[in-house]
Amino acid sequence: MTTLTPALARLVQELGRLPGIGEKTATRLAMFILGAGRDYVESLAESIWAVKTETTLCQECFGLAEGERCAICRDPQRSAESICIVEEPADLMAVERAHEYTGRYHVLHGVLSPLDGIGPDELKIAPLLDRLRSGTVKEVIIATNPNVEGEATALYLAKVIKPLGVQVSRIAHGIPMGGDVEYTDAVTLGRAIEGRREM
Amino acid sequence: MTTLTPALARLVQELGRLPGIGEKTATRLAMFILGAGRDYVESLAESIWAVKTETTLCQECFGLAEGERCAICRDPQRSAESICIVEEPADLMAVERAHEYTGRYHVLHGVLSPLDGIGPDELKIAPLLDRLRSGTVKEVIIATNPNVEGEATALYLAKVIKPLGVQVSRIAHGIPMGGDVEYTDAVTLGRAIEGRREM
Repeated sequence: MTTLTPALARLVQELGRLPGIGEKTATRLAMFILGAGRDYVESLAESIWAVKTETTLCQECFGLAEGERCAICRDPQRSAESICIVEEPADLMAVERAHEYTGRYHVLHGVLSPLDGIGPDELKIAPLLDRLRSGTVKEVIIATNPNVEGEATALYLAKVIKPLGVQVSRIAHGIPMGGDVEYTDAVTLGRAIEGRREM
Repeated sequence: MTTLTPALARLVQELGRLPGIGEKTATRLAMFILGAGRDYVESLAESIWAVKTETTLCQECFGLAEGERCAICRDPQRSAESICIVEEPADLMAVERAHEYTGRYHVLHGVLSPLDGIGPDELKIAPLLDRLRSGTVKEVIIATNPNVEGEATALYLAKVIKPLGVQVSRIAHGIPMGGDVEYTDAVTLGRAIEGRREM
């Protein structure tokens, strides 16, 4: 569109690269930013830059942090006897939102995927085993995604962790709360029956 | 959420102030920005800032510009004999997208709204009359929105422009293309009949 000034056209293009933001939404956001107060625009641009420069990985669990260790690893209230293994920092946040787990985490930053050239050395598995060898950890919960790569990674982890004398469990698979038995796919329903619990 | 680092929490908050972006979308965008390349993040932050600092108003039509005059007012191919009056720069862009109009524009930056204390002096009406008094303009098309304020503004403009000997017209109101006669509201249908054209 020739009616956009070069600066606006560039902003629309950059915003359009964000996930779920098309050209129309990008234009609307750009016009909003143009009309917004200088304070807000400055703060928005700064916070975008800051998230990239200030965010680090926790040297213990490889979750997101500012500084050497994340808020969870620094928290003495969180049990050091249990570690929940997740694929990505976003998964850690999802588990936290459930308010069910009070232990610590370990973020793999990926899953095993031989076709993509991702083996155990490309994931944060060696530092995980170092943590387990220290002897404080009694239980490991594997919360990788329930797909081919996530399951393969869980099996691999169980195999290398069990010899260290640590209890290994996998999060349950089954029908999601609020779901319908009728519309649940066969694989999930099979897992739900296999994983049935006495009442 | 305690799992967000302070920098991430701040970015989520700032993104959440954009129109149509809730906390969930803001978190998704923030995580994308965190994982995106440094080049992109730098470019995004810069373009947000640039749109605010580099965008000016055209001194002739008060549309968006970079510098003194906008691309349309600088274009010798655009007829200087016709001026289309719109409320906001976004309206100008919408008219441009129709590829129907080859004249120039005048952006009022608002509409008459006595209850909000917005009279003719708060809009860019005086500079519009100056442009019309120069004598080159033969026709004015009023494209304010078809609501109470937009209609009132159009009537006011027609009253002050006609004495200058300039032809004044209003964009047509009627059934939008692809619309249904059955589901068109009574006011629009009334206008469509009133504004019927011989075939």
